[in-house]
Amino acid sequence: MSYYRYHVFFCTNQREDGSACCQNFNARETRNYAKDRIKTLGLAGKGGVRINIAGCMDRCSQGPIIAVYPEGIWYTYVDNDDIDEIIEEHLVNGRIVERLVI
Amino acid sequence: MSYYRYHVFFCTNQREDGSACCQNFNARETRNYAKDRIKTLGLAGKGGVRINIAGCMDRCSQGPIIAVYPEGIWYTYVDNDDIDEIIEEHLVNGRIVERLVI
Repeated sequence: MSYYRYHVFFCTNQREDGSACCQNFNARETRNYAKDRIKTLGLAGKGGVRINIAGCMDRCSQGPIIAVYPEGIWYTYVDNDDIDEIIEEHLVNGRIVERLVI
Repeated sequence: MSYYRYHVFFCTNQREDGSACCQNFNARETRNYAKDRIKTLGLAGKGGVRINIAGCMDRCSQGPIIAVYPEGIWYTYVDNDDIDEIIEEHLVNGRIVERLVI
């Protein structure tokens, strides 16, 4: 059993040279939104969900991206509605949100 | 098949209040060492190994820590010799280094 049922990594990397990076899409703010939602839903902690900051995961051109482990499912997102859908479908109900998979 | 065969996350979080955190053990420098080793070994990239920076993974008292996905194996380490052993045993040969598992 994994320490976290779902360990979610948001790339929040900011490049300084203007090239593609997830923080250009305010990834850190979106991560904070997701973290707050998980806490509100009572899903945070060991055996539950961890919403983590990560550095560059080297899929910059497909960003903004998140990785969900241990499944190894990668998503992109446009806004908090997409995050809500990933939380509700995947992290609560265990169903992959195919339309957002990269 | 996971995008990376092994996606390794080093907590490099620095707390400012003096409490336990992985960066107190120079985690960022150790992560850079591991990343360089993986590159030198020709293991970096899609289908291979990614050595990633991560924020706090909330196992601070057991730090410094790394998480290896998709397995969900967590390690601590003392020095670069431990990192070399994790790379050689786990990331090259697929054998868990039990003595460093947390």
